[in-house]
Amino acid sequence: MNTLRVASHSDPSATAGAIANSVRETGEAEIQVIGPKAVNQAVKAIAIARGYVAASGVDLYCVPSFTNIQVVESNHGKTAIRFAVRPRHEMMCSSFREPRSEIAVES
Amino acid sequence: MNTLRVASHSDPSATAGAIANSVRETGEAEIQVIGPKAVNQAVKAIAIARGYVAASGVDLYCVPSFTNIQVVESNHGKTAIRFAVRPRHEMMCSSFREPRSEIAVES
Repeated sequence: MNTLRVASHSDPSATAGAIANSVRETGEAEIQVIGPKAVNQAVKAIAIARGYVAASGVDLYCVPSFTNIQVVESNHGKTAIRFAVRPRHEMMCSSFREPRSEIAVES
Repeated sequence: MNTLRVASHSDPSATAGAIANSVRETGEAEIQVIGPKAVNQAVKAIAIARGYVAASGVDLYCVPSFTNIQVVESNHGKTAIRFAVRPRHEMMCSSFREPRSEIAVES
């Protein structure tokens, strides 16, 4: 799974598409950001991505954490914020509900 | 459950304490923010709050969403970001594990 790096100028909708694709392909998405504006764009993207995958019965949540990264240009380390975006797997829970896509629709 | 309003000048550690208390008392926390800096402070606070409650076996996650709010000063509506912060209830899952606090420690 690749880590999505979101910048302050990143388009939230495009980032949301990348998040949704990563979740569909690898089961989760990992986002790394530095700076308030980038964090804001990432959060917007996650909120939009929830809408992208909700139709297929996937409920996304995110887990933010701090991570130290080494900036190539300088020797200074920076504290980035990492978002782990994962779907809530209801099939693992006792409150299991059939995904909509599997419910027979009577015409 | 009260909605925590986080501003750009809010202290992440203090906000994290408020999040942890809300989760302990009501089972979840709701945060509302406007603007990139406030979103950044809220995300930092959630990451810190995860550490506050982790010792008691609680694993926090957050669900960001958009919400429209009416600003009192003006008639303009603003789009705020709302974070629902909840613990992952493992007891609801088939992969149930006893919380550490309930495991008998042999001396």
